[in-house]
Amino acid sequence: MRTSVIVREVGLRDGLQLVPTFLGTAQKIEWCCADARAGVREIEVTSFVPEKIIPQFADAVAVAEAAKAIDGLTVAALVPNFKGAARAMDCGVDKANYVLSASEEHNRANVRRTTEESLADFERIVAERNARGVGTKIVGGIATTFGCTLQGEVPAARVYEIAERLAAGGADELVVADTVGYANPAQVRRIFGRLTEIFKGPIYAHFHDTRGLGLANVVAAVDAGITRFDASLGGLGGCPFAPGASGNIDMEDCVFLLESMGFDTGIDIDALIALRAEVQTWLPNERLVGSVAKAGLPKTYKPKQPQAA
Amino acid sequence: MRTSVIVREVGLRDGLQLVPTFLGTAQKIEWCCADARAGVREIEVTSFVPEKIIPQFADAVAVAEAAKAIDGLTVAALVPNFKGAARAMDCGVDKANYVLSASEEHNRANVRRTTEESLADFERIVAERNARGVGTKIVGGIATTFGCTLQGEVPAARVYEIAERLAAGGADELVVADTVGYANPAQVRRIFGRLTEIFKGPIYAHFHDTRGLGLANVVAAVDAGITRFDASLGGLGGCPFAPGASGNIDMEDCVFLLESMGFDTGIDIDALIALRAEVQTWLPNERLVGSVAKAGLPKTYKPKQPQAA
Repeated sequence: MRTSVIVREVGLRDGLQLVPTFLGTAQKIEWCCADARAGVREIEVTSFVPEKIIPQFADAVAVAEAAKAIDGLTVAALVPNFKGAARAMDCGVDKANYVLSASEEHNRANVRRTTEESLADFERIVAERNARGVGTKIVGGIATTFGCTLQGEVPAARVYEIAERLAAGGADELVVADTVGYANPAQVRRIFGRLTEIFKGPIYAHFHDTRGLGLANVVAAVDAGITRFDASLGGLGGCPFAPGASGNIDMEDCVFLLESMGFDTGIDIDALIALRAEVQTWLPNERLVGSVAKAGLPKTYKPKQPQAA
Repeated sequence: MRTSVIVREVGLRDGLQLVPTFLGTAQKIEWCCADARAGVREIEVTSFVPEKIIPQFADAVAVAEAAKAIDGLTVAALVPNFKGAARAMDCGVDKANYVLSASEEHNRANVRRTTEESLADFERIVAERNARGVGTKIVGGIATTFGCTLQGEVPAARVYEIAERLAAGGADELVVADTVGYANPAQVRRIFGRLTEIFKGPIYAHFHDTRGLGLANVVAAVDAGITRFDASLGGLGGCPFAPGASGNIDMEDCVFLLESMGFDTGIDIDALIALRAEVQTWLPNERLVGSVAKAGLPKTYKPKQPQAA
């Protein structure tokens, strides 16, 4: 029996966030459907951010509702604030991923409030979910956990404090993000090791490959007991601070890594590679990254049957 | 006190091996000198292969002799056979890296003999070194340790047997290579773990990043007690079987990884990045890879003083 791990697609959210071309709603929905056919069990399908801030997500409601119709798929959406969370609940998404930054400076730049104010909003969102009596899980996302391009060091003690506050505030899950690609495997083992003691629910690791350490950090997180990872098809999504640099870890390579190590992702890599080629035709100006799609799978790779979604 | 690790430059050998443009001897020597100034302690500077097979290494003697003149630098050279090893010893290199394949099919394709015949040659080379009474270390290199594009699976038992034979035959060191980028971290921990029991001298890990797992494999090898790594400046050196795919792990990223984790490489990454830019002007048709050179070092990275070479 192989250990089951989750690789969640975030290309439709984190990947598309910086893409200037509006990707059609039909194509976004086809992307979700093809992911699900490839065995992907969970997708962060959109962001409930104001349309005037990120026009790419103007169709958030349509995409979320279509994704919810896919049998067996867990549908997550990013929510930057109370209003976004309320919209996500209106759509009946399975998870509202609320994100705040462990870096004060990053939080202020990103959502124009202090981390404390963001934590207070998180509690209001949980209260709203409880008042509505709906099943939407409220997820606490911690950005810039491993350092910040604005303030530099982010004290690990602050990260642990935020995780405790999110736990006390009713977070169903955590997403712990290396938003700017600063993390290294030693730090990842240390911080995730402590976080698994603080927070007993599911913890997702969200790594960026900006400085090449993304997959090494995945292995380090596995060592610390993490079995849930965010990744983006074709590594879509660059870094706004470093032209040409990578963003999210590449999903095909991440699945290849975990399957090669003996874990069960349920995902058919060849199907991902075919989808990646299709997404590239939709977004011809975006540079996709990742190695397995270029080099091919090893002769020694034993493809597994995708599990029924 | 940080633990010291060695990152050996192999760009001048493995990197240049497939480059069709002849890189001038003066530039190769400047590359060695600049590496040494950046704190690199060891370089595989050339290959003593017949000029008619790889014209790039027609200047092997000149490059090796110039590198030997660099104060404090350990000079290694690849040798494919007895004749190459004799030439390497003539030049007084510190190490002759003799390579054979754990995959029979790969060995036959590469050096047109069986792995057993290659092992017998290895013993002749050691005997020659002993007869000469010179200080050249004879290094046993095991290619296709983790699988082979020709024969597929390479039994780990065969790898261990070869390591035992090399140890018994007088190998001063081993280089254990994932020649085709098939290795995964679980396999790396297992195989290097066993090899450190079999072979008590220094073991170098030589990873290719063909399928994106190169740096994850470095971390796995560190876990197994390995502290010596081959890497190539700018990741120079593609894979002949996969156009556009990466070859050796990128040296700047490898140094960044190890320094970030708290190890002491003695290498100044900024100096490597400057050298990389210079090498790119020498080889404008080669696509260099690597992430740190593009994205820049994190604000949280604490540069270390290079050790005196």
